[in-house]
Amino acid sequence: MAAPKLMDSTCSIARSLGVLGERWTFLILREALTGTTRFAQFRDVLGIAPDVLTARLTTLVEYGVLTREPYQEPGSRPRDAYHLTDAGRELDVVLGALQQWGDRHLPRAEGPTVERRTRTDDRPVHVGYVDGSGHEVDPSDVVAHRTAAYPAG
Amino acid sequence: MAAPKLMDSTCSIARSLGVLGERWTFLILREALTGTTRFAQFRDVLGIAPDVLTARLTTLVEYGVLTREPYQEPGSRPRDAYHLTDAGRELDVVLGALQQWGDRHLPRAEGPTVERRTRTDDRPVHVGYVDGSGHEVDPSDVVAHRTAAYPAG
Repeated sequence: MAAPKLMDSTCSIARSLGVLGERWTFLILREALTGTTRFAQFRDVLGIAPDVLTARLTTLVEYGVLTREPYQEPGSRPRDAYHLTDAGRELDVVLGALQQWGDRHLPRAEGPTVERRTRTDDRPVHVGYVDGSGHEVDPSDVVAHRTAAYPAG
Repeated sequence: MAAPKLMDSTCSIARSLGVLGERWTFLILREALTGTTRFAQFRDVLGIAPDVLTARLTTLVEYGVLTREPYQEPGSRPRDAYHLTDAGRELDVVLGALQQWGDRHLPRAEGPTVERRTRTDDRPVHVGYVDGSGHEVDPSDVVAHRTAAYPAG
């Protein structure tokens, strides 16, 4: 279950964290984005307690980040597989931003373990601010404005 | 204190979450990025328990996201103010990515409460992938590659 108080917030950062901010959830998403679909895979790679994993996956299904679909291998009982939705795949840029920050500010001696490149011509990419015509905007030129929907008080 | 097991991870997402992944931390950063510097302001805006706020601020200072500096107002005892470092300000794009995802996938009827625009000419900006020459890259063209530093096994 997502954090009820956060889900009611007018702030979309708070609502996102209501679904994504529980311990383990970003690491579950990291695995899902690299192709993990099965409960046992998530459990074994992350070393997460099964009841916690079940709770986190259920929240992600409930809020449309993952779908739960049954599958069955010959000679085994039916099991559930978890696949990212389009909304779930859009979280890649959030994880990319976290990764970039960690590589820069919490580095390790062996260097980054993952880097992002273009599929078509293998150029390195980073996460940044972009304007409507697809050009990068320097962070120092970005200002957050409150809209008319911002709560009073 | 940051989560020790995560801080030891070769994955920079996990390390980032070791510092940033505790409940409340992203919301404390949201406030810091809008100019909040004082303990009482963080406490009152977020409604967070003082002991939890102290613990989160201490971790952020310890890992170089905030600095703690004393200040004193006339007639008051000395207090601490918390200011973002350059590393802390770089988290704006992480929060921007979370905000964008929440506005899109967890919307509310009144619409977004905050939008990001260029300071110089008031154009809307979003968070995305960018190549080395400052051009946006479509997420479908971005692939994460393991480097030689990726742990075996």
